[in-house]
Amino acid sequence: MAANDAVATENRRFLDGQAVVALNVMGSPGAGKTSLIENTIRWLNNRRCVAVIEGDIATNYDAERIARTGVPVIQIATGGECHLDAAMIKQALADLDLPRGGILLIENVGNLVCPAEYDLGEHFRVVVASVPEGDDKIEKYPAIYRRADAVVVNKADLAEMSDFRFDRFRMQIQNINSYASLFELSCKTGEGLSAWADWIAQLRCRN
Amino acid sequence: MAANDAVATENRRFLDGQAVVALNVMGSPGAGKTSLIENTIRWLNNRRCVAVIEGDIATNYDAERIARTGVPVIQIATGGECHLDAAMIKQALADLDLPRGGILLIENVGNLVCPAEYDLGEHFRVVVASVPEGDDKIEKYPAIYRRADAVVVNKADLAEMSDFRFDRFRMQIQNINSYASLFELSCKTGEGLSAWADWIAQLRCRN
Repeated sequence: MAANDAVATENRRFLDGQAVVALNVMGSPGAGKTSLIENTIRWLNNRRCVAVIEGDIATNYDAERIARTGVPVIQIATGGECHLDAAMIKQALADLDLPRGGILLIENVGNLVCPAEYDLGEHFRVVVASVPEGDDKIEKYPAIYRRADAVVVNKADLAEMSDFRFDRFRMQIQNINSYASLFELSCKTGEGLSAWADWIAQLRCRN
Repeated sequence: MAANDAVATENRRFLDGQAVVALNVMGSPGAGKTSLIENTIRWLNNRRCVAVIEGDIATNYDAERIARTGVPVIQIATGGECHLDAAMIKQALADLDLPRGGILLIENVGNLVCPAEYDLGEHFRVVVASVPEGDDKIEKYPAIYRRADAVVVNKADLAEMSDFRFDRFRMQIQNINSYASLFELSCKTGEGLSAWADWIAQLRCRN
């Protein structure tokens, strides 16, 4: 873990040198991480240039989806590992056409547990929840939510059919991590995406 | 891992001695594993007695839900571990009031990666998918699906709103694991639960 942190620090310095702000996007399988990235690119509407690193156990499906938006993208297939690590990101950064002053969106493996422990060299951590997962996941998977800079609740259009109580979810976030910015949105309807894109657009390296 | 397998074998022998059939129920956070267990108990309608072991990183919420059905239940809080292991199950079995000739449902931590690697001493492995997760998860998380005895697709009532292609899902299962029994159901509407409960009701120890 110390070795990972050392490489993560290298990655962050490298990104700082390019004035690139990196986000580690985490969430359950199927929460809509790839859809959120596709929509972030669209809603940013050239206010900031974007590059993407896609992480999955297997397949290049997500990189193929992102490539259609026209931004630089690299797929990492972990081959069984339940999370990305800093060394995988270091290798991807060497190959990726990074936009100076832009945004790097890193989609982690779909998993609410393991990714929480690995610093990739990102500047901000985003957890993507989704309404059909239910409103009790923050207390069940506290570690990943505790260190999030932003929490996105996707699939808000399914709230009524899923008995999702936004009040309960908001109170849990407040209890565990009152620092996190909360975005309730739907990648399907577009609801809430403007506020999310505005948040991304203003991000600067913290160092 | 060898140590885990040895304890798993002990667990399986212990369960065989009680003629209890154990199922390891895995799936993403929020796929509906607990709802499926609640509904399995209801739809079995006393054809087989049931006991439950609930696994989570944190909270007793799921054991509290199951306790309301009246069956014996024990909660394991892994405290950060991304999966149950055989030693945790061994300890729970010592404390659980097992129904002779009955069914033991073990709900694993919500995760499509780590639980796939750990034998708990179960007789059958069930993966619970859900429609809003999307129809591409079998190829993205192949290990857990490859060794499943049954695959349940929950939240079938959300199929239309989620653009879920059952054809694609069925073809992926067929390609990766043609042995698995497939159940498409909705814990919310009750659709498909009868066939699932019938499958559970007829299970016998394989040894």
